[in-house]
This record gives sequence, C-alpha cells and structure tokens, in this order.
Amino acid sequence: MMHYSYAILGTGALGGFYGAYLQRAGATVHFLLRSDYHHVCQHGLVVESPEGNFTLPQVNAYVQVLDMPAVDVVVVALKTTQNHLLPTLLPPLMHGHSVVLVLQNGLGIEPQVAAIVGSDRVLGGLCYISANKVGPGHIRHLTYKEIALGEYQEGYQPGGMSDRLQQISEDFERAHIPIIPCDDLLLARWQKLVWNIPFNGLSVVLNAETHEMMAHPASRSLALQLMHEVAQGAAAYGRVIGEEFIQRMVVHTDEMAPYQTSMKVDFDEKRPLEIEAIVGNPLRAAQAKGIELPQIQMLYQQLMFLDAQNRASS
Amino acid sequence: MMHYSYAILGTGALGGFYGAYLQRAGATVHFLLRSDYHHVCQHGLVVESPEGNFTLPQVNAYVQVLDMPAVDVVVVALKTTQNHLLPTLLPPLMHGHSVVLVLQNGLGIEPQVAAIVGSDRVLGGLCYISANKVGPGHIRHLTYKEIALGEYQEGYQPGGMSDRLQQISEDFERAHIPIIPCDDLLLARWQKLVWNIPFNGLSVVLNAETHEMMAHPASRSLALQLMHEVAQGAAAYGRVIGEEFIQRMVVHTDEMAPYQTSMKVDFDEKRPLEIEAIVGNPLRAAQAKGIELPQIQMLYQQLMFLDAQNRASS
Repeated sequence: MMHYSYAILGTGALGGFYGAYLQRAGATVHFLLRSDYHHVCQHGLVVESPEGNFTLPQVNAYVQVLDMPAVDVVVVALKTTQNHLLPTLLPPLMHGHSVVLVLQNGLGIEPQVAAIVGSDRVLGGLCYISANKVGPGHIRHLTYKEIALGEYQEGYQPGGMSDRLQQISEDFERAHIPIIPCDDLLLARWQKLVWNIPFNGLSVVLNAETHEMMAHPASRSLALQLMHEVAQGAAAYGRVIGEEFIQRMVVHTDEMAPYQTSMKVDFDEKRPLEIEAIVGNPLRAAQAKGIELPQIQMLYQQLMFLDAQNRASS
Repeated sequence: MMHYSYAILGTGALGGFYGAYLQRAGATVHFLLRSDYHHVCQHGLVVESPEGNFTLPQVNAYVQVLDMPAVDVVVVALKTTQNHLLPTLLPPLMHGHSVVLVLQNGLGIEPQVAAIVGSDRVLGGLCYISANKVGPGHIRHLTYKEIALGEYQEGYQPGGMSDRLQQISEDFERAHIPIIPCDDLLLARWQKLVWNIPFNGLSVVLNAETHEMMAHPASRSLALQLMHEVAQGAAAYGRVIGEEFIQRMVVHTDEMAPYQTSMKVDFDEKRPLEIEAIVGNPLRAAQAKGIELPQIQMLYQQLMFLDAQNRASS
C-alpha cells in the first residue's frame, strides 16, 4: 500500500518514466507539464519499455504549480537549466512534512534546493537509466532504471537512513524501480558523473552516440581519461572511486544499445545544455580544493562554445 | 638574377602560392600536380591577393616526377598525409647539389626526409601565410606570407647560415617573400605549432573559423591554454617560447579576417587530416621527454575520432 503522494516537476524522459511507473503501481502522482500539456490531457502518458509497453490514459496534469495540491514528495526532474525557477515552483507544493527529491544529474543542486526549502527537507537520487522522450508524453525506455537514493545533509555529510527515505524506497520498489540506498550522496553524485561527464560531454563535441565513442580506440581512451579525472575530483572531497567502479561503467556502456545522451538530444533540439550542473560545477568544486582537471576543463570550454554557437544559429 | 631552379611537390594553397611568386619573379619552376593538371595546362595558375591578382598562363606542369628535370631545390608542399610517397618522389628530382626544402607544418618531417636524401640536403621552412585553394589552379591569398627558413642538422641541432640558404633566401626575397633566417629550426617548428595546434585542431572539433574561436571567451581561453602546452613541449627540448611570442600569435589571429584553417578545409572536403604531423608528433615528442600535455592529447584523440567518422561517411 502506498503512503506518499508525488509531484513530478518536469515530465520528460526521467520524470515521465518514474512518474508513470509510480502511478501504475497505485501511487497518487501529479505531473507538471509545459508544451506537452494538451497532448497528455487528451492521450495520457505512453511508456515503451523492453519490460512491456503501457499507457496511462488518465493522469493528473498541470501547467502551473499553483493548481497543484501540496504533496509528500516533490520530484525535481526538470532540466537543471530551469533551476532558476525552483524558488517559484517548490514552495506552493510543500506542506509541513513535504520533502524534495532531486533526480537531476550534476553537482551542487541539493544545496540550491536546501536554500529554498531547508536542508532537512532534501533528498537526492541518481538515476541509472537510458530513456528518451520520443514525442509528446511519449517515453522510450531502453535499459536500466535503478536509483541511488540518499538523504541530503548540510555540506553533503553522509546522511544515513531515515523513515521517509525508507518509505520512498518502498514506494519505488513497489513500482519495480530498484533502489540503491545511499548513505553518502556526494559520493553517489561523483560516481554518476563518472559516466555523465565523458559521455554527455563528448557526445556533443564529437557528434556521436555512445557505441561510436566506445568503438574507436581514441575516443574510448579519452572517455576513460575523463572518468579518471572525475575520480580525482571526488578524491579532493575524500570520496574514493576505484578502478573497479570505472571498469563497471565501461562494461555497462559497452553493453548499452546505441544511445543518444540527454545532452546530445538537447543539442540537436537546440535547447540549452546542462553544462554547469554536469561539467562546470564539478570542475569548480575540484578547483576550489586546488585540483586542476585539464581535460574536463577543455570539455567544459568546448561545450560552452558549441552551446553558444548552437543557440545563436537557432 | 635567379640562380636556383625549383620543383614544387604539391600545388595546393602553399605550393601554388610560393611557386607562382617565384616564377613571376623570373625563377624556373616545375609544378607537380594531380587532379588540377589538365585545368592548369589549359588555364595556368591564378593567384588572388590583396597585393594584386595575377595569372601565369604558362607553367611547367607535370603529373609524375619521372617527367620532371632534376632541380636545385625540391620544395615539399604536399599534405603530410602524402609523405609516405616521398621515397618515390624525391630521388628522381635530385642532382649532385640538390636540396629539399620542407614547407610542411608539423614536427618530425625533416628527419623523415633526411633518411631519404641525407641529412646534409635538407632545409625547413615555416610558412606564416593565410591562403586557400579555391578552385583548380586557383589560389586565394588572404594575408601574411613570410617564411622562417633554416638548415636542418641531424637531431635538430641549431644550423646556422649556409651559402645555399643565403641563395634560396635571395630568390624568395626577390619574389617578394620575406624570409626570416632561422638558426634553430626546431624552435621555429615549435613556434609554428603554437598557432597550428590550437587553431587547426579546434577548427575541426568546434566546426568554427578562427574569428569565432577568438570571439567566445571559452574557446579563446582554451586556445591560449593549448598554446601554453605547446610551449611546454618546446621547453622539454630546451626551446624557450615566451609569453610575448604567444601574445603576438593572439594579436595576429585577432587581426586576421575570418579564416578556414587548412585542417578544416581538409575535413570539409573529407580528405585525411594532418593529425600526426601537427598534433601526434609533438605530443609524442613531449611524452618521450616525460612531459604530458593533457589538452593536446585530448585534441589528438578527438581529431582521430572525427577524422575516422568523417571518412567513413564519405
């Protein structure tokens, strides 16, 4: 039996997928939409997945948070490029015991959210999933879906278990989303960056899908070097990412079907790229500890240039 | 009055421009051509330049070296991707006192040529020129044209002046090509790389012209960082490239009209890129001295990937 109600801010690949799974398992879910609103009101949400396709003909859809009820868990699944809206979006959805679950990629987001709702109301989740939005309200799930889930504590001190973390985990598990309990959210974020920095970044710079980058020895080596620089950044914060973790990411990527990363999809759609959350914040975090990450720095500069050119031409 | 005869191997932007200037000034010049041969036989060579346009209606054109006479100076102006042909191309053009003048960009070419003709018959020239071939036998000169010219000595020991270097310099000066006498060819090569590595490399990776890269702060900083890495590579061989040299390159590039680099032109034409001479050899030369150049390494890996994808799609 479900205990918590959910609001999904950002019904893209991530928010659409997890929200649909939660609703299908019986949870009360409210979806904030923008351009897909009318289509979803008429046709519902469609999920294609190797685990089985399904449609939710009826969802609670909204275009503005003021129409939404307060919920137990506000799931932030927007693009981080929209995070300047959070001070407006979050407060109307919060009641006395509400928490915010940040499912976005990148570093430094929980502190931003904590500044809005208080650091005792923030959880973070790292989604290991390949999925794309292929049309309005239409999510295509390719592989993986688990979430590493943890409590945020001020300064990213390791958080431990809590009743609400336990409850959210049960809700997700009941919806067939495996949860990896995560005592150390900062470690989990750096671990996720081991994949996101090289593959999101290089997919744009090299105009390539993951399998193409893995297939050529030069780009494959470069991806590995970038992974090791991410591990150096983590080490600057006392978080150890060992060789066996990196090798596991390599194996997972080798096993993936050809995949357009989310940053590449954004680039092709001429949307702003999540450069700061995924690349800029980790780079600056390492620099703040006196650690230079020259290849991540170069990737950051290349992405900044390409993003500016891309949007100037749109 | 001219003293030397010249053979131009590779009548592209570089070979076409310098060969045409030499012939216009009265030198005997023989041009090796490939795809442009029939067009040049019929229409001659055309040079457009801010200094004045001119046509050479009649040039000594050849498609194979066996038809060419031996000359005093064999000018190597091919793409370095064609250098595997040099053992076949050079010997038929050499008489007892012939020398080879390498005008190509990049590092490590003179030793290759020395292995074919002997290290006492090799000179190197670094061309500071913006020019493109815009059609068959049709060169468009934009700005700059000077050549840093030096004797090659085994192991790139500083070479000093020689009678033949003096004579070649006079021939070029008479053709209105300023010559910078160059005692230390290895220093001159690394200096040239200060421009070629960032701008040739990034023009392909970022799909951009020089003025676009200079205009955005991220790509401008990245270009400067790459310049400093080139200086580190030079320092590994005891060659000092100071900050004022780097700043001069920046100013020159700022002053240039929008420019497609030669590597970008090759990329757009789906020709093989001069990655090894311009990026790979300097990178490995530094590594051989225990110096890592992480951003040049990344550039090298990106170019290797993009070149492979580009030619696979042609």
